[in-house]
Amino acid sequence: MIEKFKLRKLIEDALREDIGSGDVTTLAIVKDDRVGTAKAIAKSDTIVAGIEVFGEVFRVYNSDINFKAVFKDGMLAEKGEVVADISGAMRDILTAERVALNIFQRMCGIATLTNRYVDAVKGTEAKILDTRKTTPGLRELEKDAVKTGGGSNHRTGLYGGVLIKENHITAAGGITNAVKNVRNDIPLTLKVEVEAKNLEEVKEALSAGCDIIMLDNMNTAEMKEAVSFINGRVMVEASGNVTLSNVREIAETGVDFISVGALTHSASAADISLIIS
Amino acid sequence: MIEKFKLRKLIEDALREDIGSGDVTTLAIVKDDRVGTAKAIAKSDTIVAGIEVFGEVFRVYNSDINFKAVFKDGMLAEKGEVVADISGAMRDILTAERVALNIFQRMCGIATLTNRYVDAVKGTEAKILDTRKTTPGLRELEKDAVKTGGGSNHRTGLYGGVLIKENHITAAGGITNAVKNVRNDIPLTLKVEVEAKNLEEVKEALSAGCDIIMLDNMNTAEMKEAVSFINGRVMVEASGNVTLSNVREIAETGVDFISVGALTHSASAADISLIIS
Amino acid sequence: MIEKFKLRKLIEDALREDIGSGDVTTLAIVKDDRVGTAKAIAKSDTIVAGIEVFGEVFRVYNSDINFKAVFKDGMLAEKGEVVADISGAMRDILTAERVALNIFQRMCGIATLTNRYVDAVKGTEAKILDTRKTTPGLRELEKDAVKTGGGSNHRTGLYGGVLIKENHITAAGGITNAVKNVRNDIPLTLKVEVEAKNLEEVKEALSAGCDIIMLDNMNTAEMKEAVSFINGRVMVEASGNVTLSNVREIAETGVDFISVGALTHSASAADISLIIS
Amino acid sequence: MIEKFKLRKLIEDALREDIGSGDVTTLAIVKDDRVGTAKAIAKSDTIVAGIEVFGEVFRVYNSDINFKAVFKDGMLAEKGEVVADISGAMRDILTAERVALNIFQRMCGIATLTNRYVDAVKGTEAKILDTRKTTPGLRELEKDAVKTGGGSNHRTGLYGGVLIKENHITAAGGITNAVKNVRNDIPLTLKVEVEAKNLEEVKEALSAGCDIIMLDNMNTAEMKEAVSFINGRVMVEASGNVTLSNVREIAETGVDFISVGALTHSASAADISLIIS
Amino acid sequence: MIEKFKLRKLIEDALREDIGSGDVTTLAIVKDDRVGTAKAIAKSDTIVAGIEVFGEVFRVYNSDINFKAVFKDGMLAEKGEVVADISGAMRDILTAERVALNIFQRMCGIATLTNRYVDAVKGTEAKILDTRKTTPGLRELEKDAVKTGGGSNHRTGLYGGVLIKENHITAAGGITNAVKNVRNDIPLTLKVEVEAKNLEEVKEALSAGCDIIMLDNMNTAEMKEAVSFINGRVMVEASGNVTLSNVREIAETGVDFISVGALTHSASAADISLIIS
Amino acid sequence: MIEKFKLRKLIEDALREDIGSGDVTTLAIVKDDRVGTAKAIAKSDTIVAGIEVFGEVFRVYNSDINFKAVFKDGMLAEKGEVVADISGAMRDILTAERVALNIFQRMCGIATLTNRYVDAVKGTEAKILDTRKTTPGLRELEKDAVKTGGGSNHRTGLYGGVLIKENHITAAGGITNAVKNVRNDIPLTLKVEVEAKNLEEVKEALSAGCDIIMLDNMNTAEMKEAVSFINGRVMVEASGNVTLSNVREIAETGVDFISVGALTHSASAADISLIIS
Repeated sequence: MIEKFKLRKLIEDALREDIGSGDVTTLAIVKDDRVGTAKAIAKSDTIVAGIEVFGEVFRVYNSDINFKAVFKDGMLAEKGEVVADISGAMRDILTAERVALNIFQRMCGIATLTNRYVDAVKGTEAKILDTRKTTPGLRELEKDAVKTGGGSNHRTGLYGGVLIKENHITAAGGITNAVKNVRNDIPLTLKVEVEAKNLEEVKEALSAGCDIIMLDNMNTAEMKEAVSFINGRVMVEASGNVTLSNVREIAETGVDFISVGALTHSASAADISLIIS
Repeated sequence: MIEKFKLRKLIEDALREDIGSGDVTTLAIVKDDRVGTAKAIAKSDTIVAGIEVFGEVFRVYNSDINFKAVFKDGMLAEKGEVVADISGAMRDILTAERVALNIFQRMCGIATLTNRYVDAVKGTEAKILDTRKTTPGLRELEKDAVKTGGGSNHRTGLYGGVLIKENHITAAGGITNAVKNVRNDIPLTLKVEVEAKNLEEVKEALSAGCDIIMLDNMNTAEMKEAVSFINGRVMVEASGNVTLSNVREIAETGVDFISVGALTHSASAADISLIIS
Repeated sequence: MIEKFKLRKLIEDALREDIGSGDVTTLAIVKDDRVGTAKAIAKSDTIVAGIEVFGEVFRVYNSDINFKAVFKDGMLAEKGEVVADISGAMRDILTAERVALNIFQRMCGIATLTNRYVDAVKGTEAKILDTRKTTPGLRELEKDAVKTGGGSNHRTGLYGGVLIKENHITAAGGITNAVKNVRNDIPLTLKVEVEAKNLEEVKEALSAGCDIIMLDNMNTAEMKEAVSFINGRVMVEASGNVTLSNVREIAETGVDFISVGALTHSASAADISLIIS
Repeated sequence: MIEKFKLRKLIEDALREDIGSGDVTTLAIVKDDRVGTAKAIAKSDTIVAGIEVFGEVFRVYNSDINFKAVFKDGMLAEKGEVVADISGAMRDILTAERVALNIFQRMCGIATLTNRYVDAVKGTEAKILDTRKTTPGLRELEKDAVKTGGGSNHRTGLYGGVLIKENHITAAGGITNAVKNVRNDIPLTLKVEVEAKNLEEVKEALSAGCDIIMLDNMNTAEMKEAVSFINGRVMVEASGNVTLSNVREIAETGVDFISVGALTHSASAADISLIIS
Repeated sequence: MIEKFKLRKLIEDALREDIGSGDVTTLAIVKDDRVGTAKAIAKSDTIVAGIEVFGEVFRVYNSDINFKAVFKDGMLAEKGEVVADISGAMRDILTAERVALNIFQRMCGIATLTNRYVDAVKGTEAKILDTRKTTPGLRELEKDAVKTGGGSNHRTGLYGGVLIKENHITAAGGITNAVKNVRNDIPLTLKVEVEAKNLEEVKEALSAGCDIIMLDNMNTAEMKEAVSFINGRVMVEASGNVTLSNVREIAETGVDFISVGALTHSASAADISLIIS
Repeated sequence: MIEKFKLRKLIEDALREDIGSGDVTTLAIVKDDRVGTAKAIAKSDTIVAGIEVFGEVFRVYNSDINFKAVFKDGMLAEKGEVVADISGAMRDILTAERVALNIFQRMCGIATLTNRYVDAVKGTEAKILDTRKTTPGLRELEKDAVKTGGGSNHRTGLYGGVLIKENHITAAGGITNAVKNVRNDIPLTLKVEVEAKNLEEVKEALSAGCDIIMLDNMNTAEMKEAVSFINGRVMVEASGNVTLSNVREIAETGVDFISVGALTHSASAADISLIIS
């Protein structure tokens, strides 16, 4: 969950990017003392995610603005429903509106897309996992949205876990060596995952002593074979070219996790509007 | 075009977000003095955008890394084509890879989507315009990508132009008043745009003395009428619910600009990979 | 108007510059719990500008300090009049005093000088305009002070409008070309101003399709001729060597705006003192 | 002398303030690869100050720009003389020009004014001293300019010395007490100055054991009496209402230092232009 | 290993803290163009750690300073030996000296102390582990020094691993619950460690499914019993009141890791001087 | 005394360093609305220093946390005594605990060590002085702790006083020259200290007109001779190889100050724990 200082800074930077030397329109037209209320309305069905972040944008810009969430994170807001009420200085609501929506619509979009993947594998053991293919600066918000949508988080960044990929294996002269080098060097509390592109590599990774094996771009037949070989000794993640059409088939191979880059790099923004009343 | 200090800071922040206390995998496995080369390859057809930003990520992380763009911004890279060569310290190429791709894939995705809209209106006078519905922190890169894709830029932020919307009109007690308040207050060099939702408002905006009129959520019949009434006296922008299916019909009403929020808030990332050789 | 985050940061930086590792005098001598009141007094006649910024310095340093403006921005405070009352922790009032005055005296000085220029052209159509010749870091405060003094603002920075100067014209190979290049490239909402040093250039600028023409270092006879030729089709700005002695004569040529660099680069600080009681 | 990191940051911030989302004019008109040269020319007589800072602005913006100072700090440049040559990327020279001049013109203006005060007291023992009445953010540059103009620096900020003013004396219950409190509390290397408004206070300050006595708003007769009483035991500073007309008379009272707020708060910018050739 | 941007910022901040408005002594006395050489000399035996960080301080302050490490990290420098040569601008060497030594002496001190613990357990299976009891701002440098001294790193921060302590257990209503809550919530790649203060808790932690068990403040008899019960199923860390006198006895209980807060919170600085020649 | 903005920033940075992308343990286990209380307890005798800084860490992280100091700075807390009570959101207390203790334990450790030196010289005129051998980033807190322990502060940084060392003397061509150069260049309010390694140099320093003489690495016989020669005309500081064993003997030579680097570079952290109840 994004830490509060970081959230505040992210919001301040976003407001600064949009406002710059001033919201010239609103400053010239809307009087300083005008107050009012606004409703955030879902324009199509969406899983709500980041509702408190949405409110925080207004509060960061003007701590006297009153924000009341009608929906909680994880709930489904149907088209036309009010998801939040905002009231206070009209000037500041208008000025902060676009930034607040830009963040919130993105988070809702990600949660909604994640939720479709989660639904698609319902009944299997597989969990939907995010990746590091996130928007620069927004990783933690995007990963929060994935969790809100029912998914799980892979490592937060390069510092948060070991993932030994093909290039690392080549550089180390083999999986066994790579795992050994890592074990001697990393903080005690990090797990080691190895990317394997065939059963051979799965076997080597397993005997090298890793904690997680990633089946990289295998077809489902190969995945089944790998899962059966591993047999619960370590966790198994499927990765590569996962879509809503094939995710269930992958889940049914028995893998523990399925990672989907599209959750964060290609989700459409949810359609949400602010109506001033 | 994004200013160089700002680009550098954006890249440093993105690297910091991903690397944090260190790329524990690469540090443990890849030796300090190992060098190598990598190729960035388009995995599906894409308009290239941000190729120099892509290279800058590597150079910011290690100024000795050599980056050579094969494609220039605005060119079409077809599936399988190499878009850039990177060579130098293998450690640093691997560590910076994800951040570089995250930015570049997003910019290419936006340019590619923009280009489809631009193609759709080819032969008309209408220009495709972006909005402020951008990702917090990335606005200037995203607006650059829109231009690379053949689109035009609306104002950069709230500071960069006047757009009088319905709420402002209400607050001012009418369009005439709103325009007058603004004229007395804003920097000399900013234009004034007024949002109009019907012909009545178009007429009032015109006589109030604005520079641009936005036809907000009108149907194409209404747009035609408005365009004909305005008759070239000010610029005309169409806005609201624009899709690839209806954009040409809108363009044929004779509007000067059509703004499309989806260009930046809902473009899918282009599929680009780094292959180490 | 300076945005609130930016103002806060500016004040914090200014306080940090002056206080550094501590106000060693006050810390050693004035007890932590001592409270008191202070009056800000005009030591000579001045147009008040930045009164709320003045108060904000104290509030930023200690949010419990009570600040009460006696004069509003734009009013004339005569010699000896109290412009504001400050009360609260004596330590913090003494420590913040100099920074608060340094900013406030500068703003009042600028407003007062601007006001003299505005008075000088009273009865004509000309407006007094500022320039980008401002103090690094203080541009928005200084431009606010110009407005408080009755002047108007030119563009806020290089990003906020197009001003095609001689060097740009040379680089583009003529005014017509320069204007054309710009029109295809800039955000929709920015106006285009062209610098012209004779009637020839005025004519070319006009037919190239600019929004504003700057008459650069022309004498008043040339200005009159230019104004008459332009005849209201675009706005006209006079620029170069404007002083209090010649500003009225310039205004009477019929130009719309007269820009004066001295407003911000050479105003004397107003004389204001803080008296502790 | 301003420290190099601080100078770099100050310049970057100033460039960012002016450039914001981009120098839209220059980007659209001047080609990326165009190079050229510019000359900085004094438009009236000025003491040169900050010539290297001036050059640093261009180098910070583009480290490949070539800057050659023709005059050194402290020299007099007469009207029409070239003070520096700049060559390199035309785009970047044009974009950085205004910020470079804004800083340089201010520093030259301060040095020139300081120099007039220094000339006025030539032949006496008195040194001209600056104050803390500087522009927020520019203190060190302004104090450097004072030294370049022949003046001396008072404390750099509240952290850099003790100055016990009337309010401190009241709070401490007398000069003797104030000095004693300070002596027990401050870093070993700081001197203690006491403000005295009459001979009585001068006597008390002297026996309390201070290092410097400031004669605050005394007339010259009182100053002479104080100087004679102090008789070289501590340094003496005259302060308050110093002008070019009365500074010599004050100097002739025998004081060691005369502080002049106007040096930094009310100097006019020097008139310097950049001519592109 | 500390990331390069972070190291640079840390050094810049440290230089700024010490230099502030300038090294007034050196600026006044040492000429700008004076060059010279300095030797860093061990004044007592020390394990060298941070030698490249030491050099980086000089290079950050002046990239032309030449730094040549004579010893590499991890080597023992005996009293009187030269550990590095520095040459270049004398001004900048003198100004940066104290900050460079402050960091380097601290890192060497930590590595030296760590090394004594590592020596004390030589021949056992136990590894010496650091904690989060580090100096604010210096954690990564201090953890690097621990590794240089032969120790291992525990988690880098609260984000880098799960450590369920007594308070968490109470809050969750027992170890089993706590582990279960965590497993559903954390990033895939983080291990889970549980603090156990007796055999009962060890058993519960083991069956709850953790990856590491910390034996908290147990005596060595209890530790032996716990190690024997756990029997290699998960890793075991001993913690609490570890000193150079008792560390071997603890190591001989068979634990995998022994964490020692004193490594970072109570190491004495190594004695190293810079001699200018 | 550390300035409040600086303290806040230091605390925020320290929290960010430890928390990073989140306290994954506490977030997963401790519910958002759980409140509780904690006691900070001295685990061995310690002089309390930084008690308000300790509390500020919790308040910075969550302004609703209630902090009540039981001991004031400078008091002796005996083993087992409660030094402060903290109550509020349990999540935030647990997350901020380590950072709060890391700072507080360091400050108490320094004050306690300083106090032992101060006790050792009790009855003499000598004051115990700190140095610039502090931890990067923590200088002001460490110097505050020295004062709390009964010591005095030397200059805050290179900007806060002149200390002419051997290298400066060589560069200037002798003490007399060095002092003269400095006098002409530095801010009015800074004292000048000269390092002397024998009586010869003491004499030269005295006639050159310095304010303080540092006796560098002299034996006590030499110190006595120097003190007797100086005879109160300037202050005298003893420096070099001071330990608890020899500090009294040094004090009895009659020097005014004895500086001890170990106060800040080699103090052990005080042993303080937070017990949740």
